[in-house]
Amino acid sequence: MAVQPDPIQPVLIEGDWRAARAPVGQFRAENPATGEPIGPTFPICGAADVEAALAAATAVAGELAAASPERIAAFLEAYADGIEADVEALVEIAHAETALPKQPRLGAVELPRTTGQLRQAAKAVRSYAWTQPVIDTAANLRSHLAPLGKPVLVFGPNNFPFAFNAIAGSDFASAIAARNPVIAKAHPSHPATSARLARIAHEALRKSGLPAAAVQMLYHFDHAIGATLAGDPRLGAIGFTGSRAGGLALKAAADAAGVPVYVEMSSVNPVFLLPGALAERGAALAQEFFTSCTMGSGQFCTNPGVVIVPRGADGDAFVAAATAHFAGAAPSVLFSRGVLDHLQQGVATLRKAGAQLLAGGEAGAPGYRHAPTLLEVDAAQFLREPKALQTEAFGPVSLLVRVDDVAQMAQVASAFEGNLTGTLYTAGNGADDAASAEVARALRPRVGRLIGNRMPTGVAVSPAMNHGGPYPSTGHPGFTAVGMPAAIRRFAALHCYDNLPEHLLPPELRDHNPGGVARQIDGCWCVDDLDGAEPA
Amino acid sequence: MAVQPDPIQPVLIEGDWRAARAPVGQFRAENPATGEPIGPTFPICGAADVEAALAAATAVAGELAAASPERIAAFLEAYADGIEADVEALVEIAHAETALPKQPRLGAVELPRTTGQLRQAAKAVRSYAWTQPVIDTAANLRSHLAPLGKPVLVFGPNNFPFAFNAIAGSDFASAIAARNPVIAKAHPSHPATSARLARIAHEALRKSGLPAAAVQMLYHFDHAIGATLAGDPRLGAIGFTGSRAGGLALKAAADAAGVPVYVEMSSVNPVFLLPGALAERGAALAQEFFTSCTMGSGQFCTNPGVVIVPRGADGDAFVAAATAHFAGAAPSVLFSRGVLDHLQQGVATLRKAGAQLLAGGEAGAPGYRHAPTLLEVDAAQFLREPKALQTEAFGPVSLLVRVDDVAQMAQVASAFEGNLTGTLYTAGNGADDAASAEVARALRPRVGRLIGNRMPTGVAVSPAMNHGGPYPSTGHPGFTAVGMPAAIRRFAALHCYDNLPEHLLPPELRDHNPGGVARQIDGCWCVDDLDGAEPA
Repeated sequence: MAVQPDPIQPVLIEGDWRAARAPVGQFRAENPATGEPIGPTFPICGAADVEAALAAATAVAGELAAASPERIAAFLEAYADGIEADVEALVEIAHAETALPKQPRLGAVELPRTTGQLRQAAKAVRSYAWTQPVIDTAANLRSHLAPLGKPVLVFGPNNFPFAFNAIAGSDFASAIAARNPVIAKAHPSHPATSARLARIAHEALRKSGLPAAAVQMLYHFDHAIGATLAGDPRLGAIGFTGSRAGGLALKAAADAAGVPVYVEMSSVNPVFLLPGALAERGAALAQEFFTSCTMGSGQFCTNPGVVIVPRGADGDAFVAAATAHFAGAAPSVLFSRGVLDHLQQGVATLRKAGAQLLAGGEAGAPGYRHAPTLLEVDAAQFLREPKALQTEAFGPVSLLVRVDDVAQMAQVASAFEGNLTGTLYTAGNGADDAASAEVARALRPRVGRLIGNRMPTGVAVSPAMNHGGPYPSTGHPGFTAVGMPAAIRRFAALHCYDNLPEHLLPPELRDHNPGGVARQIDGCWCVDDLDGAEPA
Repeated sequence: MAVQPDPIQPVLIEGDWRAARAPVGQFRAENPATGEPIGPTFPICGAADVEAALAAATAVAGELAAASPERIAAFLEAYADGIEADVEALVEIAHAETALPKQPRLGAVELPRTTGQLRQAAKAVRSYAWTQPVIDTAANLRSHLAPLGKPVLVFGPNNFPFAFNAIAGSDFASAIAARNPVIAKAHPSHPATSARLARIAHEALRKSGLPAAAVQMLYHFDHAIGATLAGDPRLGAIGFTGSRAGGLALKAAADAAGVPVYVEMSSVNPVFLLPGALAERGAALAQEFFTSCTMGSGQFCTNPGVVIVPRGADGDAFVAAATAHFAGAAPSVLFSRGVLDHLQQGVATLRKAGAQLLAGGEAGAPGYRHAPTLLEVDAAQFLREPKALQTEAFGPVSLLVRVDDVAQMAQVASAFEGNLTGTLYTAGNGADDAASAEVARALRPRVGRLIGNRMPTGVAVSPAMNHGGPYPSTGHPGFTAVGMPAAIRRFAALHCYDNLPEHLLPPELRDHNPGGVARQIDGCWCVDDLDGAEPA
């Protein structure tokens, strides 16, 4: 073979790094700060590679489902170790592809979050905490959550090159923890970051002795191939984080085939500033809001995209202070031309629906930049055009909604469609207690996470987190995409054993507790063995 | 108003028994044993009633979500008491409409199961067991499962006039336990039974002080209106038990609107007779199989519709004995002409795909009767036509699949689509242990409940039950339709409270445990209060 100066990067299929077969195109990453192509060339896969990956994952799904928890946990930990050993290069590459700051964001926040998540998943695997064993001794029925026995397809978003990467993030860790093979579909705006992670994952896989096709990597394929794959009944489930249009298209394809699909799509994360809070600390709130809205160029799922502000002097002062912050900020770099286009369309939709521009509104140069942008609208107009005025403008953009009083605040809260979060800022002296209860009642069924006195950005990886919410923020209100062990349960099937002999039971359902596993036995949680008595 | 001899029965909307508005038709029940119409005339509702019910339920959803667990539990228990007080009439009416035996089936089995289920739901409500509270003290994050804040639409099937009735069964009890209003869509084959239950529910509602529109009843509407309703974003969720065609149509409509939909559709419930079991007790197994397959005229979701039988003398003896049982049985009464038609189509499909008739195969008279029917096919043919040969013929029908050896048995197991149950019959002396492990490996990911040495009919209402399974037996492999508290979780949303003051928290997430509630605090299950220490 002749040596080529810039070979197209291989894909990871069935344990091999091999050239894409019959790719339908190729692409390179861009430096968003300049708009210039950077790094190597990656293939846009065609049907042949997708089929090969699906067939290979399907072939090993049973073996992976039967793997010991120790082996799964060892893989997750070896992967976390491998990521840490490569931190400098990873941060460098991710910075070049995303323009996110190397420090603290990529190196000190997102990378440790990613390895922490992998290790929390390993811990949940070892403790069997995600399996929720339930035993009914009288009926001799035993059930738990178990692997799907089929591959999980994970789509990574643009905005977390590590922590939500299709091959390293929460969906990946969750699907592997539930002992399902993963077909990772990287986000095409950071392919080299994804490739580097995939090499580390591949090496950890080799070390842990899991089947080689347990983790596969495709960088890109077109929408039609994505929809065909999503609707393939060989798939066990899909995890997706991204745009509403992309998520709904995948969901439609998966739903038609009965493939469980978890899509985390879009959210404007309303923030309600109660009158007492504004009176008490309006200037500080303006600063806090501006910081949250513009951090990471506002490219967070939980960005505060709508802020509800009472009329009157305190509200006006807040608006003036926030406007000054936004107006004084330089344009910030977005991830891609796509993000910039989408943001501009979003702002245009908001303005067309009656929102007035207070600050920003202009794209910048070079590369893909946009000024932090603040808009304002009357509550009456918001209530007339609730759909258009809830348009997500992903990026450093927020819409202020001015309300006459608390009753109108609750009315506005009732007009929101499903969101990931809703936030209440209240006075420390209790002045807002009654009002916040009224707004909370309206907001509660419309959001996954109800927040008090802190901005929605910043999603703790905690067993008590809900990074989810009612449609259309996600596709199902009962599940979270972040937090172990709950996030793992998305990629599991409920399995019941009815009168089966001990040797056909999984370890956590046997009479002998495999070691500290919390099990619900006859209605009580305990870590006991079953006694030798006959079922009553 | 003129007195009419046979007024059309009223519907229960917004707390009133009122005439249907602009119904699109009317119907009466039939006595399936004779085919003759019986009982009063019921309306087929049009869009006006459906809209009125949805609007009324939506209006009270918030009030119901805020109701105290004690009030919800009191309603469920008052309803169970009311059913018990009316047992004689209920059994009489249900018998007339379904031809199911009054005793033991309706009176001694299904009715106590129904009231037991309502009381188990009440217990889960009082203990908060379905809400799964999780508290992270360091992050001050608290989450639990909570009401959807929207109505749940429940479709009852034909085959359990009490225990799965849209207004009394597991889906009903689950949705109400999660504090959601229910719009019940009765099955049109037993409207008078449903009406009688609805009147008892209505009275219990009045006693408990829950909002009047918390429980509503429509007897019938057409498919188009059903699809429109299922796709209405005001709905919180849908529970459906019935045919695959009906379930898939509803699922498509609900999926498109992002409405969570739980459909329990069809299942052939394969039973594998291992060689050692056949050698040990083949004649007893033939009797056990015949009894299970023909009980209730075979009209169970978990009816053993396919039995895998090894070739050879023991297998032949089993087939001969089973054939004799089926051939000697009188035609049994089915629920309706629809069930009879569907059964005949199913049998025709099986025969067209190569199954040979061993016994039965004929409809009977009067009314809707069909002979218990046994068919047989080669494993090789089954593997050539797996889709057609898994056609459900709902009723007293089963297909025997003859296999050469255990390897082929495992191959057949691997050809099954998602089922509610899969069963292994094994020798008591351990002779089948290796073989059953091989078959179990193939079968496990394809069924919700794996059963040992008992027939799949008979679904215990237990916390460890799974009456669910992979698609297309249901629409999601992670949920069960039977068993408290798990079944309740289908009708819940995950709610997180992030840094909220005590007064905005629900009782089970407050520092003070409201009384014996099992909560996961910082990774451990306990019933403690939180101590007064500041979060670490």
